[in-house]
Amino acid sequence: MTTYQSLIDLIQTRIEQQDKSPLYLKIAESVKHAMQQHILKGGDFIPTEREFGELLGVSRITVRKALDLLDKDGVIVRSRGLGTMISETVEYSGKTATSFSQQVVLTGKKPDTLWIKKDTVPCSADIAKTLNLKQGEQVFLLKRVRYIDEQAVSIEESYVPSALIHDPDEIQLSLYDYFQSQNITPSRTQSRVSAKMPTEESLEKLNIDEHTPVLLIEQTAFDNTGRPIEYSINHCRGDLYVFVSE
Amino acid sequence: MTTYQSLIDLIQTRIEQQDKSPLYLKIAESVKHAMQQHILKGGDFIPTEREFGELLGVSRITVRKALDLLDKDGVIVRSRGLGTMISETVEYSGKTATSFSQQVVLTGKKPDTLWIKKDTVPCSADIAKTLNLKQGEQVFLLKRVRYIDEQAVSIEESYVPSALIHDPDEIQLSLYDYFQSQNITPSRTQSRVSAKMPTEESLEKLNIDEHTPVLLIEQTAFDNTGRPIEYSINHCRGDLYVFVSE
Repeated sequence: MTTYQSLIDLIQTRIEQQDKSPLYLKIAESVKHAMQQHILKGGDFIPTEREFGELLGVSRITVRKALDLLDKDGVIVRSRGLGTMISETVEYSGKTATSFSQQVVLTGKKPDTLWIKKDTVPCSADIAKTLNLKQGEQVFLLKRVRYIDEQAVSIEESYVPSALIHDPDEIQLSLYDYFQSQNITPSRTQSRVSAKMPTEESLEKLNIDEHTPVLLIEQTAFDNTGRPIEYSINHCRGDLYVFVSE
Repeated sequence: MTTYQSLIDLIQTRIEQQDKSPLYLKIAESVKHAMQQHILKGGDFIPTEREFGELLGVSRITVRKALDLLDKDGVIVRSRGLGTMISETVEYSGKTATSFSQQVVLTGKKPDTLWIKKDTVPCSADIAKTLNLKQGEQVFLLKRVRYIDEQAVSIEESYVPSALIHDPDEIQLSLYDYFQSQNITPSRTQSRVSAKMPTEESLEKLNIDEHTPVLLIEQTAFDNTGRPIEYSINHCRGDLYVFVSE
């Protein structure tokens, strides 16, 4: 039988802290905290609603609210037959334009970025069409490897009209944070998703073998005025990523 | 240089028919017709707007309208640098709940279905949760292999609440046609899309080798009252399918 002692200790300590955070939020936060401290990792089971209630001495309604939040943030996967598990997959949202970093932070994990290229290049015909630019016009190419908890998970190439980027050095972990700082509000996306075998570059940079497929996500993001602001090509580890849309 | 004579002949014959169909529609229809007759196949290039106009003696505006329609239906892929190509991929729409058969017919291709199972089974916990049913309750399992132009392209398992199906024998090529006949209107979908290596069953039924990945699409469809009407698990050939959402 699994013991949840370290997890329960961590949550109890948080609950006892004197602040105005609601109880369910303290519990949800502590689960994310436990992941950062490697007390919990993807694939681990956590207590059921009933067990949690008993171990913590709180109502099942409070536990349910905490689990609902963790579920919504993609931290846990609930299955009536099997119990509640820490999610092993990364959700790529096709619903709204959200930043990789924001999404990873929501799950209690640590995002990181290794820049490969941050430069202007002449626009190809296809990308010009997608971004409403002229062929050959300068466009920013932002290429980076994305990490979650120090593991490479995707290679991302973003093409951004150069008029939207004044100082590329200001773009750090998140392009979307930079957009926000320029009062550009990403809102809608269009995506094309396919399954591919890994390229040489994916094998090397994502540290996968040739039996791990790649989820290829091509996405155009538009701001709240309907203007295209980014076209990205994302090679994501097929064993970790799931694209979610509705 | 490629000759387009058979295609042009086919379109000219259609144009000369005395009916009230607008010219651009006659052209678009003829391109689909040419695919059915194997005059055109996926990957073939077709004339440019200008060439089409000259070969047919019609205005470029009319040609553009025909190409716009073919583009919208997923029949052609236009690229400013490379020209216009007959699409080799099958688009799986995450935008609206549309039937496989309808989508395939739109592209001028011939859909077919081989039934593997059409029976009621007890509902698992997960599927019960998705379809708002009780665990163990009877649910229809519709399993089939989908074909496009006699080539196997996907394996589809649909779970449908048994209350929605009165006579399974009435379900032929399209579950959605059956829904329509029962005044059930599929409207919204939720999808989870991932990349997988092929299972034994995919290797065999889809006639692919172990280097062809599978695009796994799990989709829940809701009717216009918000009621879940279908949960489907689709194993699609990764070399043919692209999932499209916005």
